[in-house]
Amino acid sequence: MGKISSSELPIGIFDSGLGGLTVVKEIINLLPNEDIIYLGDTARVPYGNKSKDIIIKYSIQNTKFLLKHNIKLLVVACNTSSSYAVLKLKKIFKELPIVEVVTPGAKTALKTTKNYKIGVIGTKATIRSRSYEKIIKKFCKKAKVYMQATPLFVPLIEEGWVDEVYKNKNYTQQQRINHKNIIKQLAIEYLKPLKNQNIDVLVLGCTHYPAIKMILKDIVANKVEIVDSAIETAKEVKEMLVKNNLLSNKKTAKIKFYVTDDPHNFKIIGSMLLNKKIRNIRKIEVSMLET
Amino acid sequence: MGKISSSELPIGIFDSGLGGLTVVKEIINLLPNEDIIYLGDTARVPYGNKSKDIIIKYSIQNTKFLLKHNIKLLVVACNTSSSYAVLKLKKIFKELPIVEVVTPGAKTALKTTKNYKIGVIGTKATIRSRSYEKIIKKFCKKAKVYMQATPLFVPLIEEGWVDEVYKNKNYTQQQRINHKNIIKQLAIEYLKPLKNQNIDVLVLGCTHYPAIKMILKDIVANKVEIVDSAIETAKEVKEMLVKNNLLSNKKTAKIKFYVTDDPHNFKIIGSMLLNKKIRNIRKIEVSMLET
Repeated sequence: MGKISSSELPIGIFDSGLGGLTVVKEIINLLPNEDIIYLGDTARVPYGNKSKDIIIKYSIQNTKFLLKHNIKLLVVACNTSSSYAVLKLKKIFKELPIVEVVTPGAKTALKTTKNYKIGVIGTKATIRSRSYEKIIKKFCKKAKVYMQATPLFVPLIEEGWVDEVYKNKNYTQQQRINHKNIIKQLAIEYLKPLKNQNIDVLVLGCTHYPAIKMILKDIVANKVEIVDSAIETAKEVKEMLVKNNLLSNKKTAKIKFYVTDDPHNFKIIGSMLLNKKIRNIRKIEVSMLET
Repeated sequence: MGKISSSELPIGIFDSGLGGLTVVKEIINLLPNEDIIYLGDTARVPYGNKSKDIIIKYSIQNTKFLLKHNIKLLVVACNTSSSYAVLKLKKIFKELPIVEVVTPGAKTALKTTKNYKIGVIGTKATIRSRSYEKIIKKFCKKAKVYMQATPLFVPLIEEGWVDEVYKNKNYTQQQRINHKNIIKQLAIEYLKPLKNQNIDVLVLGCTHYPAIKMILKDIVANKVEIVDSAIETAKEVKEMLVKNNLLSNKKTAKIKFYVTDDPHNFKIIGSMLLNKKIRNIRKIEVSMLET
């Protein structure tokens, strides 16, 4: 077998669980020729209520695992990891091109806003890190950033409580209406302080949240634009591949999924988020990451 | 310093997070002279959606940690760990008296039921294990056990969404009403299949759930008795101490808390669940458990 050209190596992507699949979906749309290796750390999900030290530790372990698969570029498809661990990852893995999910969303928010009042929702850890505020302020001092932790969205989404469009067959029509109603009540409470600040852009600062984008859109109504990190991140991945001359020319692309706990739930909910049946999925032991 | 008599050693208790505090509260009520060492594995919460292997591994690690503190008895204050790991723990730690939370609740359900239709709610893992059904059937073949996983209760309770009586000052009165309303809608959906089976007893098969007992009571109404594992487990602890001649005669008892992640949330919500200010709390690294 001849030497594989760097451009034909896979893109490595990790997230704490299912959320990163919203990023995978957009990368497949934009870059259909790229092989992908995805690691969902489902045994240790959620990252968003953990401390900085633990988030950094897990992120390093996940990156090392993906590097064993010879990836050409890393996507940190988790806003919590992006907020805390990316500087450290860049320091440790100097040669590896790394794309994270905070900067693309922050930049797009700035391009979109007219009144420079930007709302950001995310996990507790992401909000505590003030990562969005720091980046947005770096590019534009006059922008005001209003942040709100929305910690219960991730558990709901991991349970398959998602927008109607996904038609989750695990639940009856009546249950789906009930779930939508509950998410709506929760979102009204979470978003109230941001709406009171008269924001005109809402950044979905967690890769899980695109799964409930329609419900959120309903609540903020037309005068607020929603920025979906997943789409923006896929664009950034493409740019980075072009810049590093790493775009693949493959005719058929493969996607492999690894999870750290029972793949059953990941398969069902993941296939919905990805809008594509997940087949190639393997369970690895957390201890494999820890060593 | 003289040798400490075994009876004066502390009771060791672990849970995945805050839930075990409902058991601690009942143990303090019943056994006010006992020293307690509590480990809340908050970095790895929740256990209830993890696989059997991981639950067993974490349970062994937690027990080893508590044994370093020279405990005289172990309380596995987590129904998920009790369902999967207790047999293994008893095998490994042969000399250690171990109390788990499933059997006491199962026995009380049998004492309480009149129509022998028993409902059990718990985490996904606890329900999947069929632990309650196995124990109840062992004692009484004619009993019918109806089980329902209620996986979203733990994240809500860990966020401090608890019965009104706790008066969580993190939230406004309006937010608390909103939360109660949301839990109610969720519980109506979860409990519907059990109510349809005409159960007359509902076992709270997770040590977190006593925190929302009043809301659940509202929904099942008067004809269903609620069995709270926490109270039953405290009674079992007392019996086991008496049987092993290990009751403490101490005049003042100390409680120490260890958590594996940022203690902030544990302190606030935990103090509510315990109805007592948590002071003596230390954070340890998860890596300390892993070695």
